[in-house]
Amino acid sequence: MLHHVVFSSFYTFNDVLLSHGLSPKVALLFDRNTHRLFSQQIFQTFHQANIAQSSFVVPASESAKSLRTAERLYGEFIKNGIDRATALVAVGGGVVGDLGGFLAASYLRGIPLAQVPTTLLAMVDSAIGGKVAINHPLGKNMIGFFYAPVFTFIDVDFLATLPKRDIYSGLAEAFKYALIQDAPFFDRLESQFERVVSLERAAVEQVVKRSVKNKLRVVKRDFKETLGLRALLNFGHTFGHALETLSKYRAFRHGEAVLIGMLCASALSKNLGLIDDASLSRIARFAKRFPISSRLLKRHFFDVEESAMESAMQSDKKKERGLIRFVLLRAIGEAFLCNEKISSRDIRRAIREAKRFLK
Amino acid sequence: MLHHVVFSSFYTFNDVLLSHGLSPKVALLFDRNTHRLFSQQIFQTFHQANIAQSSFVVPASESAKSLRTAERLYGEFIKNGIDRATALVAVGGGVVGDLGGFLAASYLRGIPLAQVPTTLLAMVDSAIGGKVAINHPLGKNMIGFFYAPVFTFIDVDFLATLPKRDIYSGLAEAFKYALIQDAPFFDRLESQFERVVSLERAAVEQVVKRSVKNKLRVVKRDFKETLGLRALLNFGHTFGHALETLSKYRAFRHGEAVLIGMLCASALSKNLGLIDDASLSRIARFAKRFPISSRLLKRHFFDVEESAMESAMQSDKKKERGLIRFVLLRAIGEAFLCNEKISSRDIRRAIREAKRFLK
Repeated sequence: MLHHVVFSSFYTFNDVLLSHGLSPKVALLFDRNTHRLFSQQIFQTFHQANIAQSSFVVPASESAKSLRTAERLYGEFIKNGIDRATALVAVGGGVVGDLGGFLAASYLRGIPLAQVPTTLLAMVDSAIGGKVAINHPLGKNMIGFFYAPVFTFIDVDFLATLPKRDIYSGLAEAFKYALIQDAPFFDRLESQFERVVSLERAAVEQVVKRSVKNKLRVVKRDFKETLGLRALLNFGHTFGHALETLSKYRAFRHGEAVLIGMLCASALSKNLGLIDDASLSRIARFAKRFPISSRLLKRHFFDVEESAMESAMQSDKKKERGLIRFVLLRAIGEAFLCNEKISSRDIRRAIREAKRFLK
Repeated sequence: MLHHVVFSSFYTFNDVLLSHGLSPKVALLFDRNTHRLFSQQIFQTFHQANIAQSSFVVPASESAKSLRTAERLYGEFIKNGIDRATALVAVGGGVVGDLGGFLAASYLRGIPLAQVPTTLLAMVDSAIGGKVAINHPLGKNMIGFFYAPVFTFIDVDFLATLPKRDIYSGLAEAFKYALIQDAPFFDRLESQFERVVSLERAAVEQVVKRSVKNKLRVVKRDFKETLGLRALLNFGHTFGHALETLSKYRAFRHGEAVLIGMLCASALSKNLGLIDDASLSRIARFAKRFPISSRLLKRHFFDVEESAMESAMQSDKKKERGLIRFVLLRAIGEAFLCNEKISSRDIRRAIREAKRFLK
């Protein structure tokens, strides 16, 4: 069920395609940015390798993850003769990966999928593990599947053109793996932070590889999120999603929201007596090394009532039987899914503390 | 991966639900007909068993298998708080089963599905095996998945209100199993035909059970249609789909088109020297016991040029590398997937012979 993750330079893509038993026929899905930045280079590689290709371009925004866009692309696939022997190659960040995965899972009852993440967030998280989805006007990621790509192809050179803010956003998810299950990785992130941010190749690759390993470790054991293991990957996400929902996904990068969310969840863990002050301080100190615009923080976090955040959390789709289930820390590197109800008082107090840390 | 098929009376549905580990919370999907005919009885059963239910109704026509209807239903599911613990129960024929399966596979990345087929065709074929799909304006069943229901629940009492024409349509698919892999079943169908048509319970149940067994035997070994085994179930469908496409799905019942298609494929098999005259005559004699309107036959089969049918076959989505792959008979009860190219001349001649048999 689980896919390979291949680290290599893009010019080897054709070899990787063939070595995974796929036929030399691909449908490339780009967003406008990845199409502008990378399509020439990719077309050439394929051309030299005699790989037949068609390409499809969608807007570089969350709005592309819609049934409308999907319907248009199904139509283009049909017109272009995309068949079950064609591999869909999704070149981009989370939006392209999610939409491409959705299309590959559903077109003709499933065609082969290869993920080619071009953002750090996609490399360390969204292009790994087979969760794909599109949005419904009434909710984000409400329609989707668990659909593993045949392989995820990672070439960190794609990151060269990525805005710094998106590098930080990806690093926040790497930080998540450290907090939930890999304490030594936290040490490394602390020491390597500046080198990763300035895109030193070895440092970046190390962080990506370690993140992928961490994610696969979880996903391998709980692909369809039925055992409560995969739920650990949602550490910080319950608080984070609330911030994203309240700001209509227009303020924070996903990683920024998750970073704030992790700080809330860590404060909650400390208040419940699960981790000590020193651990929380260390987490907060590291979180503060991520530059989040103080204007955004004020408007979309500090000025947001704790009660408003709590209500937004109540409508999360991961709720079970009316209960919000929090992922909490027992220590740095050890998260667990809490089965008990957390009081409003504790939730709000944790949010207040996270605010204080970031002010 | 494979689901159970349960034969029982509907009043035991709640027990079956719980014995499959599902929570007592269901979303019922009906078409207008099944809602009118069966919803009261079903609501009562659930009410007595304390099963929480919401219900959703779609038009009783192929047009319900659209992305538009799906989008509307996702929205209703969200508004009604349908969560991952809710089982979607699809009560109806192929349209409801296909649409319900599509929704269950994709809503929240998959919720449990139970199929409750109410037509003979759905009982012997479409509700078994996990193929679900909706249509795209450019092609039928282009968007879908392999998504096995937790169980398929069969109560042949649902057939009491089914038009006779639909009974015959379902029987055509039963006949298909006999032809492709179960010669003794053909003997039985010949001798039991009238009793099944007049809905003698024992006879109907026997035909349904034997059909289900036949289908599961194939599906179990080739769930995702990758080994060429499941393709045998398409016997008669290449010719049949051409007839359906040319008449815009408005003339024949699916089983009628498949029946005509099987006669074409059998004639082709004989012309290629694979089966003898006696076998073809026996197949034709049995096919003639199915009453198909002579007006429809004339207009949508006899008057259709063989060349037009052949072109329609060229656009079938099951084509591989430009080649139509025919399922042919080596004997009654023994089908195989032919890898060789069949000449236009042979295709047209087979169609002409099938016409002659039915005239």
